[in-house]
Amino acid sequence: MGVAHKILIVNGPNLNRLGKRQPEIYGATTLADVEAMCRDRAETAGLAADCHQSNHEGEIIDVIHAACDGAADGIVINPGAFTHTSVAILDALNGFDGPVIEVHISNIHKREAFRHHSYVSGRADAVIAGCGVQGYVMAVDRMAVLLGAGDG
Amino acid sequence: MGVAHKILIVNGPNLNRLGKRQPEIYGATTLADVEAMCRDRAETAGLAADCHQSNHEGEIIDVIHAACDGAADGIVINPGAFTHTSVAILDALNGFDGPVIEVHISNIHKREAFRHHSYVSGRADAVIAGCGVQGYVMAVDRMAVLLGAGDG
Amino acid sequence: MGVAHKILIVNGPNLNRLGKRQPEIYGATTLADVEAMCRDRAETAGLAADCHQSNHEGEIIDVIHAACDGAADGIVINPGAFTHTSVAILDALNGFDGPVIEVHISNIHKREAFRHHSYVSGRADAVIAGCGVQGYVMAVDRMAVLLGAGDG
Amino acid sequence: MGVAHKILIVNGPNLNRLGKRQPEIYGATTLADVEAMCRDRAETAGLAADCHQSNHEGEIIDVIHAACDGAADGIVINPGAFTHTSVAILDALNGFDGPVIEVHISNIHKREAFRHHSYVSGRADAVIAGCGVQGYVMAVDRMAVLLGAGDG
Amino acid sequence: MGVAHKILIVNGPNLNRLGKRQPEIYGATTLADVEAMCRDRAETAGLAADCHQSNHEGEIIDVIHAACDGAADGIVINPGAFTHTSVAILDALNGFDGPVIEVHISNIHKREAFRHHSYVSGRADAVIAGCGVQGYVMAVDRMAVLLGAGDG
Amino acid sequence: MGVAHKILIVNGPNLNRLGKRQPEIYGATTLADVEAMCRDRAETAGLAADCHQSNHEGEIIDVIHAACDGAADGIVINPGAFTHTSVAILDALNGFDGPVIEVHISNIHKREAFRHHSYVSGRADAVIAGCGVQGYVMAVDRMAVLLGAGDG
Amino acid sequence: MGVAHKILIVNGPNLNRLGKRQPEIYGATTLADVEAMCRDRAETAGLAADCHQSNHEGEIIDVIHAACDGAADGIVINPGAFTHTSVAILDALNGFDGPVIEVHISNIHKREAFRHHSYVSGRADAVIAGCGVQGYVMAVDRMAVLLGAGDG
Amino acid sequence: MGVAHKILIVNGPNLNRLGKRQPEIYGATTLADVEAMCRDRAETAGLAADCHQSNHEGEIIDVIHAACDGAADGIVINPGAFTHTSVAILDALNGFDGPVIEVHISNIHKREAFRHHSYVSGRADAVIAGCGVQGYVMAVDRMAVLLGAGDG
Amino acid sequence: MGVAHKILIVNGPNLNRLGKRQPEIYGATTLADVEAMCRDRAETAGLAADCHQSNHEGEIIDVIHAACDGAADGIVINPGAFTHTSVAILDALNGFDGPVIEVHISNIHKREAFRHHSYVSGRADAVIAGCGVQGYVMAVDRMAVLLGAGDG
Amino acid sequence: MGVAHKILIVNGPNLNRLGKRQPEIYGATTLADVEAMCRDRAETAGLAADCHQSNHEGEIIDVIHAACDGAADGIVINPGAFTHTSVAILDALNGFDGPVIEVHISNIHKREAFRHHSYVSGRADAVIAGCGVQGYVMAVDRMAVLLGAGDG
Amino acid sequence: MGVAHKILIVNGPNLNRLGKRQPEIYGATTLADVEAMCRDRAETAGLAADCHQSNHEGEIIDVIHAACDGAADGIVINPGAFTHTSVAILDALNGFDGPVIEVHISNIHKREAFRHHSYVSGRADAVIAGCGVQGYVMAVDRMAVLLGAGDG
Amino acid sequence: MGVAHKILIVNGPNLNRLGKRQPEIYGATTLADVEAMCRDRAETAGLAADCHQSNHEGEIIDVIHAACDGAADGIVINPGAFTHTSVAILDALNGFDGPVIEVHISNIHKREAFRHHSYVSGRADAVIAGCGVQGYVMAVDRMAVLLGAGDG
Repeated sequence: MGVAHKILIVNGPNLNRLGKRQPEIYGATTLADVEAMCRDRAETAGLAADCHQSNHEGEIIDVIHAACDGAADGIVINPGAFTHTSVAILDALNGFDGPVIEVHISNIHKREAFRHHSYVSGRADAVIAGCGVQGYVMAVDRMAVLLGAGDG
Repeated sequence: MGVAHKILIVNGPNLNRLGKRQPEIYGATTLADVEAMCRDRAETAGLAADCHQSNHEGEIIDVIHAACDGAADGIVINPGAFTHTSVAILDALNGFDGPVIEVHISNIHKREAFRHHSYVSGRADAVIAGCGVQGYVMAVDRMAVLLGAGDG
Repeated sequence: MGVAHKILIVNGPNLNRLGKRQPEIYGATTLADVEAMCRDRAETAGLAADCHQSNHEGEIIDVIHAACDGAADGIVINPGAFTHTSVAILDALNGFDGPVIEVHISNIHKREAFRHHSYVSGRADAVIAGCGVQGYVMAVDRMAVLLGAGDG
Repeated sequence: MGVAHKILIVNGPNLNRLGKRQPEIYGATTLADVEAMCRDRAETAGLAADCHQSNHEGEIIDVIHAACDGAADGIVINPGAFTHTSVAILDALNGFDGPVIEVHISNIHKREAFRHHSYVSGRADAVIAGCGVQGYVMAVDRMAVLLGAGDG
Repeated sequence: MGVAHKILIVNGPNLNRLGKRQPEIYGATTLADVEAMCRDRAETAGLAADCHQSNHEGEIIDVIHAACDGAADGIVINPGAFTHTSVAILDALNGFDGPVIEVHISNIHKREAFRHHSYVSGRADAVIAGCGVQGYVMAVDRMAVLLGAGDG
Repeated sequence: MGVAHKILIVNGPNLNRLGKRQPEIYGATTLADVEAMCRDRAETAGLAADCHQSNHEGEIIDVIHAACDGAADGIVINPGAFTHTSVAILDALNGFDGPVIEVHISNIHKREAFRHHSYVSGRADAVIAGCGVQGYVMAVDRMAVLLGAGDG
Repeated sequence: MGVAHKILIVNGPNLNRLGKRQPEIYGATTLADVEAMCRDRAETAGLAADCHQSNHEGEIIDVIHAACDGAADGIVINPGAFTHTSVAILDALNGFDGPVIEVHISNIHKREAFRHHSYVSGRADAVIAGCGVQGYVMAVDRMAVLLGAGDG
Repeated sequence: MGVAHKILIVNGPNLNRLGKRQPEIYGATTLADVEAMCRDRAETAGLAADCHQSNHEGEIIDVIHAACDGAADGIVINPGAFTHTSVAILDALNGFDGPVIEVHISNIHKREAFRHHSYVSGRADAVIAGCGVQGYVMAVDRMAVLLGAGDG
Repeated sequence: MGVAHKILIVNGPNLNRLGKRQPEIYGATTLADVEAMCRDRAETAGLAADCHQSNHEGEIIDVIHAACDGAADGIVINPGAFTHTSVAILDALNGFDGPVIEVHISNIHKREAFRHHSYVSGRADAVIAGCGVQGYVMAVDRMAVLLGAGDG
Repeated sequence: MGVAHKILIVNGPNLNRLGKRQPEIYGATTLADVEAMCRDRAETAGLAADCHQSNHEGEIIDVIHAACDGAADGIVINPGAFTHTSVAILDALNGFDGPVIEVHISNIHKREAFRHHSYVSGRADAVIAGCGVQGYVMAVDRMAVLLGAGDG
Repeated sequence: MGVAHKILIVNGPNLNRLGKRQPEIYGATTLADVEAMCRDRAETAGLAADCHQSNHEGEIIDVIHAACDGAADGIVINPGAFTHTSVAILDALNGFDGPVIEVHISNIHKREAFRHHSYVSGRADAVIAGCGVQGYVMAVDRMAVLLGAGDG
Repeated sequence: MGVAHKILIVNGPNLNRLGKRQPEIYGATTLADVEAMCRDRAETAGLAADCHQSNHEGEIIDVIHAACDGAADGIVINPGAFTHTSVAILDALNGFDGPVIEVHISNIHKREAFRHHSYVSGRADAVIAGCGVQGYVMAVDRMAVLLGAGDG
């Protein structure tokens, strides 16, 4: 049997506050819960998920670079506020060859106008917004299809 | 045991051409395939899916009105090109009380600028774009969670 | 005594939901009520009102074409969402020689920015917005003055 | 029997020229005629109308302040050119609790682009434009409904 | 000898009013005249022209779909007002493999600003505007060249 | 011999400070000097100049209304800051039948962007900017030509 | 000992309604209260405060002109709605040599977009917004530092 | 028999490179070929075609001036890049009384955004774009109709 | 007696250069001076001030998160250049329940246009700009009022 | 006695058509008439006027360069259509040390929007628009004042 | 040994004034100096430089056409003001197969906003701005690398 | 002999991936290669080059601050994606007194629109874009001229 495909789950700024910050928008599940859900679902799908969160744009870039060098075959990313402001993360993702799925817990298209534009969408294969933390699980499912999970 | 929640799967203009039109963007699965997938997944999730497609904005509005009158508890909609031009569909959805999930087969945010704005997103609870026809299935899964499927 | 002037009362998409949809914005009166009010007031003013509603842009164009061919001497139109998106209805009205009055139940200028622009206003002689369903009656009154009602 | 509701009819800059200025746009009726029409119609409807015109933004604000202090239960205002430029009148109206109806003699939406935006519409309950001086009478009728005229 | 290439002549909303509506802009020729002219010219050029007009966006889409399925080898389209508003027709045309020529009777670039943008131009091989009804004939001529008429 | 044509010289807000305010932009001549220059030049040209300055938009409108009623045959106006903000003065001037010349002491087109647009230019027959206070005298000269001075 | 520096406290349109208008935004303190607070704080700081309020743009300009002629060494101004619309007040302030501090009771940057731009900020040395009526006192304190209070 | 109408065929900058430059966009026909085609077609239609090409805006203006003075009864112009930048050519054409037809070899509406606007379209009676060099011939045909060729 | 309320004083990028960088804009006081001033004033007001500066957006977010978890009851923030670019800091502040005051040493509204927009203002209760380093002290004073200092 | 100051009168594209082109906008005076008027008025004022007209941007630049090298002490320029499009003429004028006056025969601010912006105004000391050909004479008069005519 | 590659050095309008015009921006070196520097550096690098300057857009196009026909293997161009306005030069360069380097003596990105956009950059391989006349030499160096100088 | 001038070579986010990322845009040379080239060229020119790269905006600011304190006399910076988003780096550079040269490996003006604006260009003396890694060497050469290399 082949080695499981590795996927990277990246969370951007303020997502370490999940479950503590604005629960009316983001719900009560914590980041640890989300990461556990992702790892479980990935395992079920024959994938191995590695999770990172950072409030530092530079660290997110570093993690994506590691993925470029083989640490991951696919990237699920919720760039948080960097969605709307970071060309540098877009550039890092442009250097990655595998599939990229962008996740937002809330439907950013229903919020302030400056949240309607995503630099990351210029690279992402798919965008899932407004499905709550279930969106991460859905992204893992999609990644499994894209990578032909378990056949790595 | 309770009655299954009913969900409406609406497809907008040109989606009857699925599998025939621009397969490099939309893939080779036909609309009939997609609708079958949705019905199967819905059934698995304890939901009953009813599927409609139209190239006529007015017919889509009529179907949504029927949903408002109880024909459906949730709406999964791929408005196709009407996404970007139809305030009338937005208004029809504004009259619907249940959850609404917007699906796009391709990642509209990577295409022409006029495809980046969605009137429907002003009402939709969630948006799934770029997951191919799998996006419909993911939407049904999400709908099952939102409706507490099977407990209707 | 002369023949009564005929006026056409046209209602656009979703207005068939009047009284059912978003009563906090549009009130509880139904479309049938509104049409009855219009016919009554028209009769009082010596006019004959003919009422049509459609969710289909094409049907509204067809009805306006009939008016152009003599079915009506004046048009009262609440284009609903087509107000903001339909150049085709504007073009149809441009082919009509009599007076045109645009009615909106709510004050569209206080709602989302995309509701502030009306293609129909480029042709309409008058606009009445935010007077609730009474706006239709006011439009009939104005039409009576413009047509010199009863002297047709 | 109760005391009649009082309404304030405010006319902005250049409306003292009514009947003298650009009759092809505004008609031949004078401001005095209009004010008399308003008072008559108000009386018929069980309202008492008080009329003011000024070319001075400050005086219009003063009159609105008086209305806020009880001088009027509803305001019918044709802000003239101030429609498009006066945030101060908007702020004054924001301090008024009763209904506000904005009237324009011509259909401002068919004229120069800078006449399409109204600061006052951000506060007004209704807008009547392009009905000529009859628009004032229609506004009084609407005000009667909103105030439950004669029951003040 | 080969079978004649088939071409589709599509006319959009209000073009059924040709010769009746705004003759100062569109001239006095009727749609039936135009369609006859097109069929004659096509025949001369060894093409077979099939003509459709509709005020319904959905019907135009349906006709284009038929063309995609082999009903036509080339499309001449005057989308009327849908030129400026219909992404759905653009999408339908994007699914068509043959040549597309866009015709406008008047020079839309000299009219209101909102008539300067054409969604259909994003797909059309050529645009002919302001040549009156002769523009249709010119389009048929061009189509004959593009299709190598008569050699189908 | 005929009666001299009367011209109105109107100066807007802050021009009473001429010679005191920002001399590097506006020079050292006072408003009284300017008005004397205008009256002298007008007299030489067979015109009678009447001069008004106000910091109040309403007073400027009142003075223009008087001109409309025969107090002047031509208007030379330096609207000061109202140039860029007053639709009401534009409307007042629209009610005046004679020639209107707009004067600015500095070249407003070289200053901040918001000074590049003039509502008054939408009505003025001519604009003289950046000629210092000599611009007023030039405007009087032009007015003499337009009015056929001395033949009134 | 030297003469106290004089400062001018100017309040623009609708601020006479302070404490009466929209208390949820502006609080319950009246303008008289604010002016008394300013005079007290000024006196404590060795300054003499003179207070003016007007709903008339022209009167505010007149008061600023007086300040230019020596009536005040510094200006604290809450231009109210004129903040966003008055180039004339900006021009008047441009003719003043001393320090200018702009005060807004609410944080205008959190309100409607048209309240985000201030013409006065193009001249003001400082802007204090959202500190309630305490903002005036803070402005007096800052003015004391800028003028070296009491050493005039 | 009357004298043939004269038409001017003007080609702007870089069109001397036709057949050499970017053949994938403009085809392999040379300018000399195009001019010969135009002259032939004109002769057939009873017109006399005079052809000019220049890379100099001033020379194009000079040629149009000659047409204004009687050298031509109609102008067919492919302004090349000057389409998008030359107000001076527009002004020259505004001084010409006969028909003007604008030709573009490619469909400029499918290329870069700055090629979508044509100053010349503000004057041209018709625009033919994307018909390759056949567009010139079509323009001659249309010109023949407009001029009533051969009856000059 | 109660425990003193804690306030956080956050300074963003380049503010560590205070007193060294562009003294003509920012003055000669150093950041250490400013922080000492804040701590002193806070103590006087019965508050305890904790000061942080960072050139790293991520560190500023971390410090705000600590405040959210109880490290501070109010936040005074000069976001420096992040004012105009950081949605992430806005999001962090959105997760904080206490008052937030935004301070800028210079009047950013008089500088380049890109400095006129502040993401942080979308959350801040107050903005103090252009009061030099005294602005921090004023912010502490305001914070004392908002927190009811000393009663924590 | 000193040598007369030399002034350059430059006319841009299409102005050689003066008196022939669009007399309803530009009047019936020819360019030769205008140049004679300028030379006469200049002589009266103790100036020597040299006149040039060209439809070629490059020639206008060459003439301005000659002025820079001493051929003229002041420039009166009517750039015609180049007003709105030529940065190169602006740059040439930026290299000229003497006064520059921009003249337009019509009031360009009342015409199409693209005629409202002038690159030349970024350098011109004054702008005279809408005074017909008298505007040139007025410009010569102003130049005489600026140059202290006759004292060169 | 092979024949040296030929490069074309093109300078646009006003660059003949180099060393005479605005030395604070452009320095004191003359165009002849610059051209000599380029020829020397080219020779050193094994290239043969041919230099042209023109104030006429058409002449620059002609020179580029010659390069297209073999007169040059690479083009170094400082389009001067045509940078921002000439689509025609862009089109000419689009017909050239070799490398193109755009040079600006000053840093155009620090000057007026209209100087920030370059049509030529849409074609140029490289842009060197703000290096003074040294920028030309640097461009020659880069050209040598791109052409593999001396191996032509 | 004097001490060599020191220059700082700063590379922003993702430039550590040089040679690995998108070689079709950026080439195959690695960052280490580039830094070695810079050090060599600097040494040849009598300069000492110190090289830094970071994916963290804050670290780049820190390095620029060190330069401000004397660690470098000139700065060559390729800000990568921060070019378009970092006001903080602009502010840091504004605090530096020596020359600044901005380098981009590709011609950013030919890529996506959001890459056309550079905050850093508001401070940089020169910009070199699209010369590949040779651009760094060219920047060192220019720096040598600006600093009078070797004479420090």
